[in-house]
Amino acid sequence: MKKPKYQLIIDFIKEKIAKGEWPIGSPIPSQRNLAKQFDVNRSTVITALEELMADGLLEGKAGKETIVTNNTWTLMGAKSSTNWNENVTLGIHKPSVSMVQEINEAESNTNLIQLSKGELSPEMFPLEEMKVIVQKVSNQLTSFGYEEPKGNIKLRQAISDYLKVRGIEASPSSILVVSGALQALHLISIGLLKRGSTVLLEMPSYLYSLTVFESAGMELQGLTMDNEGIIIDSIYPTKEKGKNILYTIPTFHNPTGALMEEDRREKLIAYCEREQLPVVEDDVYRDLWIDNPPPIPLKAMDHFGNVLYVGSLSKTLSPGLRIGWIVGSESVINRLADLKMQSDYGSSTLSQLVAAEWLSSNFYDDHLHKVREQLKTRRKVALDAMDKYLSPYATWDIPKGGLFIWVKIKPEFKVKRLFEKALSNNILLNPGSIYAEKSGQFIRISFGYASLDEINEGIFQLREIIKNQ
Amino acid sequence: MKKPKYQLIIDFIKEKIAKGEWPIGSPIPSQRNLAKQFDVNRSTVITALEELMADGLLEGKAGKETIVTNNTWTLMGAKSSTNWNENVTLGIHKPSVSMVQEINEAESNTNLIQLSKGELSPEMFPLEEMKVIVQKVSNQLTSFGYEEPKGNIKLRQAISDYLKVRGIEASPSSILVVSGALQALHLISIGLLKRGSTVLLEMPSYLYSLTVFESAGMELQGLTMDNEGIIIDSIYPTKEKGKNILYTIPTFHNPTGALMEEDRREKLIAYCEREQLPVVEDDVYRDLWIDNPPPIPLKAMDHFGNVLYVGSLSKTLSPGLRIGWIVGSESVINRLADLKMQSDYGSSTLSQLVAAEWLSSNFYDDHLHKVREQLKTRRKVALDAMDKYLSPYATWDIPKGGLFIWVKIKPEFKVKRLFEKALSNNILLNPGSIYAEKSGQFIRISFGYASLDEINEGIFQLREIIKNQ
Repeated sequence: MKKPKYQLIIDFIKEKIAKGEWPIGSPIPSQRNLAKQFDVNRSTVITALEELMADGLLEGKAGKETIVTNNTWTLMGAKSSTNWNENVTLGIHKPSVSMVQEINEAESNTNLIQLSKGELSPEMFPLEEMKVIVQKVSNQLTSFGYEEPKGNIKLRQAISDYLKVRGIEASPSSILVVSGALQALHLISIGLLKRGSTVLLEMPSYLYSLTVFESAGMELQGLTMDNEGIIIDSIYPTKEKGKNILYTIPTFHNPTGALMEEDRREKLIAYCEREQLPVVEDDVYRDLWIDNPPPIPLKAMDHFGNVLYVGSLSKTLSPGLRIGWIVGSESVINRLADLKMQSDYGSSTLSQLVAAEWLSSNFYDDHLHKVREQLKTRRKVALDAMDKYLSPYATWDIPKGGLFIWVKIKPEFKVKRLFEKALSNNILLNPGSIYAEKSGQFIRISFGYASLDEINEGIFQLREIIKNQ
Repeated sequence: MKKPKYQLIIDFIKEKIAKGEWPIGSPIPSQRNLAKQFDVNRSTVITALEELMADGLLEGKAGKETIVTNNTWTLMGAKSSTNWNENVTLGIHKPSVSMVQEINEAESNTNLIQLSKGELSPEMFPLEEMKVIVQKVSNQLTSFGYEEPKGNIKLRQAISDYLKVRGIEASPSSILVVSGALQALHLISIGLLKRGSTVLLEMPSYLYSLTVFESAGMELQGLTMDNEGIIIDSIYPTKEKGKNILYTIPTFHNPTGALMEEDRREKLIAYCEREQLPVVEDDVYRDLWIDNPPPIPLKAMDHFGNVLYVGSLSKTLSPGLRIGWIVGSESVINRLADLKMQSDYGSSTLSQLVAAEWLSSNFYDDHLHKVREQLKTRRKVALDAMDKYLSPYATWDIPKGGLFIWVKIKPEFKVKRLFEKALSNNILLNPGSIYAEKSGQFIRISFGYASLDEINEGIFQLREIIKNQ
């Protein structure tokens, strides 16, 4: 059976759209050209185009170009509820989507001086130790099937021991292994929070936490901070019971670097217990202390299962392992484990075995020791350069750990222009506005990723750019 | 500051609830006993209990026991929308939650004859080759940071080559690495489908797909099957454009084992193109053919990007790697990659490198060859035993691949009782009712997991049970 001509045109156009050769939003060739190409009358072309318009794939207006508007899958379009960058908001604040996308793309550009990346430099990756451990694991392998819902028991035991040293008593049955802290927040959002609940959190806060919570239909309410984190008097949960949670990064907060001292932690825990406000403690930077070990986690002060504790190996050892954990009361962990099974059937056995080996050997502590030495040097280089070059133009606190310096640029200089000018000079940094509207005069400088020379050079260049504004 | 007595009682009870020592639904000690234990009047106990009731943690009725009803986290209670087992429904059909839970638990009981598990026996796990590959990977390691959103490029290239042999042309940029097929369905559900969309799918169908789609708020509509899969005339999408998708397992369908022949595939693809019905093709059993290679995938016949193709290494190599893939048009894959980043920031680098090594070496083909030999033997043992023991009581088709035989028990025998009786005799099988109401007279027997002796013994025992009904 031979297809009619107009059907050939339809097939041709559908294929172009499907393959992405004609992306959504692009104009298609003129009717005249299509008629010529297929050797048909324009009326045949019009028949084809009309069918495609009726299907919602094209849109045309009299006297204007015909535009590709959809493909079959985008026609399904759940776009509105779960789009990655479009949902990044904090209350009434909508940061520039294009800026976040620009940063995401620029982060994989190896020609840039990366003062943006929130991860350890490849220099600090313990390659030799990792090889040893992977080989050791390969020698101990047995057949691996599906893991238990909460994760490999060897790893959970190792995490339990690891947490004990940090003040948290948690049995393996109250620990859930996840694929990094972001998945922890994702599971908590979809599994424990009602749509329309309010998440109270530091303002500014970690960009991708905001996205996760918002994608799951939560409201966000920013809390005021000082250099010890959340100011407790600024917490006003909505009155409805069971509709609020507090999300906090008390230790080496991202992006500000703030460290909550013990006294504040005690007050916060007492407040949350009194108000029955459940807490998610994001503690992924804890092991990156530089001067002194930080105060014990909120979770260590929690006697009523009110705190869900999130940790990870991504910031300290390797993001590529995709291993993190959630600690909470057993009934809640059981529920999250069900959800974890539902969303990906558990984390990689291989990664879990390697993580278990890291945590239960001395390798992890030795590695952390080296990382801290390096971070100390890196912080010094960054701060020296900032003292030398930026002091007339900006102020900052000295972070006691973590990867970031939160820099307040004096109000006479425009941060948006600084960001753009820096990028065109091959320096990437994070403007505060992507974290919170009121942080518009800040920039976040990471001293964890770029080389020492690059850190110095990058900060010098920032001075030149500011000076010439 | 000393706490008042009633506060001590409150703290004590909260702690018991939080630690799970007093689980939700359990009664708390009597007022008399609490009064004695804390050496207070009953009125003090009542003050404490009233506060806990006001907080929603306890519930008590006059003259009855006081019951634990919540903990702070369950108070948040998004329970209704995402509970794992409670949502397993197919249209009006609600299979017994308790039965599914019973099966889940029984699957980890190593004392049972497992005619239930849908995975390869540990006997078939290629332990030596896996060790070799993991060691090879460990020697080639470089520092691993976060992966590209779509996954490690080496793995995507290997998947692209793998798919080419199976008839699918897909560049690495149109492939997304995921942590198994279940995550693929999860991402598709939350990322591409509108709440209230209708998923048309084989009835019966894979249990956990149903759950994933339903948890994301989809309606399910069952399609009638014959032994070649979906009967196309039974497809009636709802009229609203962009609100239907078709989900299908055309190759060695779970649970029925049906294989869609080429002719049916062509008709199905033509139908879906004409009706603009997007298709999710779940093809995780393809490599487990026993007699002959199956017809090419639907995706290989798809010229318009209408099919999203899902594959995995879990059924053929190792569930523990947690590696699968989605193939589709680039714009859709980009969107799903964003969502993957949002939910877990990519799959384990280590697993991805190991999977890449498997697929790009000869190891995978050699392994599949051995698996097919084994499955052929296993199928023969199962069918011989069934011929010998079950033919008076049941009928079945011979599966051409996959892991399952779908057995129709004659109507005079009760399948529910067979399941229960079998379990009490240490034999686990899946009753058809957990897949679809109208499959109530079926059982699914897996020949992939138990040993040959166990398969024979298990089927013999089933005969004894049926005979004695």
